[in-house]
Amino acid sequence: MSKQSRLLEEERRKVNFSVEELTNIYDGGVEQTEMKRKVEAAIHNDPECRCKDVGMMTREERFNDGMRRTIHLNKVVFPREGWNAFSKELDYVLRNIGKEFCLGIHTGVFLPCILSFGSDEQIAKWLPLGAQLQIIGTYAQTELGHGTFLRGLQTVATYDKASQEFVINCPEISAMKWWPGDMGKSANHALVMAQVVIDGKKYGMHPFIVQIRDLTTHMPLPGITVGDIGNKVGFETTDNGFLHFNKVRIPRENLLCKNSEVKPDGTYVAKTKDKMVYGSMVRLRAIFLEGEVVSALGKACTIAVRYSLVRQQGELEPGKPEVAVMEYMTQQKKLLPYVAMTYATHFACLKLKKMYNIFEQKVKEGDLSGLPELHALSAGMKASVAEQCTDGIEILRKSCGGHGYSNASGIPIIWARAVAGCTYEGENTVMYLQCARYLVKCYNQVQTNRLHGTVAYLNNMNQSTCRVNKANDFQQPAVLVACFQYRAREVIKSVAMKINHLTKNGYPNHEAWNKCSVELVNVVKAHITQYIVATFASVIDELSCSPPVKTVLLQMCALYALENITLYSGDFLKVGYLSPKQCDLALEAELDLLSCLRPNAVGLVDAFDYSDDLLQSCIGAYDGNVYERLFEWAKKSPLNKTEVHEETYKYLKPYLHAGRDILEGKTKSKL
Amino acid sequence: MSKQSRLLEEERRKVNFSVEELTNIYDGGVEQTEMKRKVEAAIHNDPECRCKDVGMMTREERFNDGMRRTIHLNKVVFPREGWNAFSKELDYVLRNIGKEFCLGIHTGVFLPCILSFGSDEQIAKWLPLGAQLQIIGTYAQTELGHGTFLRGLQTVATYDKASQEFVINCPEISAMKWWPGDMGKSANHALVMAQVVIDGKKYGMHPFIVQIRDLTTHMPLPGITVGDIGNKVGFETTDNGFLHFNKVRIPRENLLCKNSEVKPDGTYVAKTKDKMVYGSMVRLRAIFLEGEVVSALGKACTIAVRYSLVRQQGELEPGKPEVAVMEYMTQQKKLLPYVAMTYATHFACLKLKKMYNIFEQKVKEGDLSGLPELHALSAGMKASVAEQCTDGIEILRKSCGGHGYSNASGIPIIWARAVAGCTYEGENTVMYLQCARYLVKCYNQVQTNRLHGTVAYLNNMNQSTCRVNKANDFQQPAVLVACFQYRAREVIKSVAMKINHLTKNGYPNHEAWNKCSVELVNVVKAHITQYIVATFASVIDELSCSPPVKTVLLQMCALYALENITLYSGDFLKVGYLSPKQCDLALEAELDLLSCLRPNAVGLVDAFDYSDDLLQSCIGAYDGNVYERLFEWAKKSPLNKTEVHEETYKYLKPYLHAGRDILEGKTKSKL
Repeated sequence: MSKQSRLLEEERRKVNFSVEELTNIYDGGVEQTEMKRKVEAAIHNDPECRCKDVGMMTREERFNDGMRRTIHLNKVVFPREGWNAFSKELDYVLRNIGKEFCLGIHTGVFLPCILSFGSDEQIAKWLPLGAQLQIIGTYAQTELGHGTFLRGLQTVATYDKASQEFVINCPEISAMKWWPGDMGKSANHALVMAQVVIDGKKYGMHPFIVQIRDLTTHMPLPGITVGDIGNKVGFETTDNGFLHFNKVRIPRENLLCKNSEVKPDGTYVAKTKDKMVYGSMVRLRAIFLEGEVVSALGKACTIAVRYSLVRQQGELEPGKPEVAVMEYMTQQKKLLPYVAMTYATHFACLKLKKMYNIFEQKVKEGDLSGLPELHALSAGMKASVAEQCTDGIEILRKSCGGHGYSNASGIPIIWARAVAGCTYEGENTVMYLQCARYLVKCYNQVQTNRLHGTVAYLNNMNQSTCRVNKANDFQQPAVLVACFQYRAREVIKSVAMKINHLTKNGYPNHEAWNKCSVELVNVVKAHITQYIVATFASVIDELSCSPPVKTVLLQMCALYALENITLYSGDFLKVGYLSPKQCDLALEAELDLLSCLRPNAVGLVDAFDYSDDLLQSCIGAYDGNVYERLFEWAKKSPLNKTEVHEETYKYLKPYLHAGRDILEGKTKSKL
Repeated sequence: MSKQSRLLEEERRKVNFSVEELTNIYDGGVEQTEMKRKVEAAIHNDPECRCKDVGMMTREERFNDGMRRTIHLNKVVFPREGWNAFSKELDYVLRNIGKEFCLGIHTGVFLPCILSFGSDEQIAKWLPLGAQLQIIGTYAQTELGHGTFLRGLQTVATYDKASQEFVINCPEISAMKWWPGDMGKSANHALVMAQVVIDGKKYGMHPFIVQIRDLTTHMPLPGITVGDIGNKVGFETTDNGFLHFNKVRIPRENLLCKNSEVKPDGTYVAKTKDKMVYGSMVRLRAIFLEGEVVSALGKACTIAVRYSLVRQQGELEPGKPEVAVMEYMTQQKKLLPYVAMTYATHFACLKLKKMYNIFEQKVKEGDLSGLPELHALSAGMKASVAEQCTDGIEILRKSCGGHGYSNASGIPIIWARAVAGCTYEGENTVMYLQCARYLVKCYNQVQTNRLHGTVAYLNNMNQSTCRVNKANDFQQPAVLVACFQYRAREVIKSVAMKINHLTKNGYPNHEAWNKCSVELVNVVKAHITQYIVATFASVIDELSCSPPVKTVLLQMCALYALENITLYSGDFLKVGYLSPKQCDLALEAELDLLSCLRPNAVGLVDAFDYSDDLLQSCIGAYDGNVYERLFEWAKKSPLNKTEVHEETYKYLKPYLHAGRDILEGKTKSKL
């Protein structure tokens, strides 16, 4: 056993709580952990399906292997294990197959969209084909020239009464569909969002099913130009594509017509708008945040914490043996707040999912009133959690020093995918401002109406100050929640007043809004951090568990909160809730917590329960055997395929031979 | 001409200062700009040497192409243009060949180290060989288990009196050399740092020349295990390597003996320590910061600003045409402060180089007293500038939305290389703490001695407050410099007092230091920001230039400062220099500046003068023709080599054919 492995074993003996108990709580119950492990074993034990290291692979190798694995999963594993797209195991299947798979948009977006937009007849036609991969679809909305601003999309579907067809066309190059996943090389159908035009009149964006490739040869159909958009930061296994339509004709029936229909004579019939489309976005966001962002942070924490416990570097006390880098306060400050963030944002995502489930129940009873709140919360969470967590992953990567920069650490690959979450599914700044609009509206209502739910804390607009006078007081959840509620309230109030002031002084609404937008983004960060701290505190409060686990979770909650107080001390001071002295106490409390949590560090990340298969990290594996793993990994470098790298030798040979002759005294050096 | 190109042309007409004049100032004079452009043309006009797009290439393709280009440069371009490693043109050669080249460590570190560590005889033997690539060397210091902590390095050089040889050996796997550039597949010699042992006694780390590969076959020599360490975030053209010694014997003469010697009988002779080794690190840091970090930020700014001026998205005013994303305040706040940061840190790097040159002069007169200050400043600059700038590049990347995530934007590739600067050449946190040690020492002296140079501002420890009472006051450089000096002084004072308090209360020095290290990092950030603002202000003050250029540079200085006030408002409030009201005024001043600078945005980045060759960006090229470039680029995706991607088709075919048969009514769907 290597020295490093021994060190990690010793660390595990220091942990003073039950890691398994904490895992069960994290998973949402013992049964969940059991189901997760069963799925994990099934995938781990299938060599065709097991995660493999991709750190040395090219983009095309990763794409090819992702396709192989996806088909194996559908063809062999699902039938063998009795799983399908609606199984309760599905979340765990997604977790345990890791990120190297294809056709994610087909399954995750194309099929659900048919259900959302199609009539019963259309669903009956397309859904079974899609569910069995007999057609493969993409969701083609984003264009080269337009992303988040949907009304700007340029692809047109002109109705031709004579033939009862729609003519799909891209009037200019920027109208080409761009980015849709699975579209580049895989999809043979696309759910295309296009502007409906009938008799020269525009009717807005509508969803169409368009076949784009031949089902025999897989060649693009006439009028279609389609391909992969090239290499990106991450998502190597996704063939994000471009798609250009040159007057492509499709039958009238291919307009998905749950919400609106075009009759054969060109009459446009609008049906009731289905608001649940927005509702399901909420659910998707909660799932995406947890599965793509929070879990990525959890993996990066696991790697960085384990590595920091076995990496010894430098003397803390002069003349004494070297210590693990975790002994340095600066290292603890880099790592442990992100472990806390993983817990805090994880429970906030679980809560968001629960809120959605309650909302869905109410919708069935005809009550849609919860939608604006839920929509705003999920937009704010999406932006704020994606930003915080992906910034954190990069800090964790750097905390691993040089090895963090190598793909061997696994963190570069984790980050490269997760960070896309700041951009897709609604660009972060747009999301911040959507949430801000709701908050400002709430603030303007609070004078006349009581607010409920996640904005109820805005009801109390009394001035007050924090009464903490020693560092330890900052460990109490109630004290921390009060800090964040006060700050959020005050920053919302301040910007709302500024907007009102501007509009009173003659600025049009949109200009006042733009002038305040920098502060509005900050408002949402304040609101969401408040939401996360309050949610985490209430989750812990309701938990029945052993005292050591409760203690460590309370410490996580406090650490997340205190890190945010230190980071945004300017806000807390400006609104007058904390004094400079109290800010110092908050930092003191945070540093105390770090020392306190340090012996439990490995237990806190072990509890996330990421297997070595999922981490794919030489420096973060469970056994701590860092250096031997790095050496074995390095040998697989593409440049090491042969002992002498032929291309290098080709260029260097004449120089080397000249050097040899000089060193052997056969010729003389000339300079 | 595309609509986007027209938009950028219109933007250029709005610029109210001479871009060429600003370029000349940025470059350090008209002659410098001319030399730069001459070198640029020579490289641009040579198709073998010209930068090419690497966004779709694999790591091995990039390495091979880098090697080809490097050899062409040495063999053909240098002789043709009359350049060599000592030409005044060299900085511009490095600038204009871009980042895709090999043998950078050989030229940039191995050769200078021979000069620093070798005796005259050794220099005469090795330098000419190296200068002509007849030997290729690496600098082998970092090991698998040890980086920044040099005393922990484990490779041993045991002197064998009988044969008058050193035996180089790695006692365990973590002792293996790891990371040295050019080592994996290129180098045939290594400058190896190893622990000298004579008769069982250790003498510390010493530099040896060790041949590692055969000069005829390029095969590793007996006892040597060497190879590439595999794929990383960036630096694809560098074969960072591993190197294991199994009792490799080298002649006694291969100990580079300028500083210490081992006599044939094993007598160890220490000569005077050459402090200039530390001095030259200062110079290297200034060059590296400018060439690898600040320039990377400048390129990212150029790309993001141009793109934001032609990318139209959404309506600012409802019902009006779409506007460029630059019209949104949130976008201006993402971009323009980093344009300002590029200018601010660029001039600070120039100043650091000048300080080094003055120091070098003084050393010749026997005066080494400036070393501690210079060393501390360069360590603090290295950490602080690398962190600020690389964080900025990532923010700029995200500001480009989806296209920023594609390699087509060029920013992912720029970032991937620049961000390594936070880790190599001294890990950032270690650098911060080195600078902090100097600052705390200065603070402790200030009670008894007057301080000079970059820490002179610590002499004034009087309490005061800022007297600003309207936003516009914050445009004055003197006001801003005073803010940053006050803040830096107070945070240094506060942490120095805390350390003193702890040691008085019985904590050993090292423990008190560790307990305060989180605050010490902040102290250095405060000191360096102060230094950058003050330097920028004094550079502008001394400049003779046209009023419009002076105005825009003053605005850049103010914007850099105000961004840092907003970011660290907590510090300014806590030390009591700014009131909450003044913090609001600072933000107001910053937002006013953004609007004011907006029409000049394209001019400010054009002035950096990065050619399209160097940017390699579809969205940031000079002509603004974003969309057509993206489409042309995408076609080159590795997945687009054939219309039908064979591997995909192979896996999907059976499903497609089943789908076809169902859709054609030949079979029925089964679900």
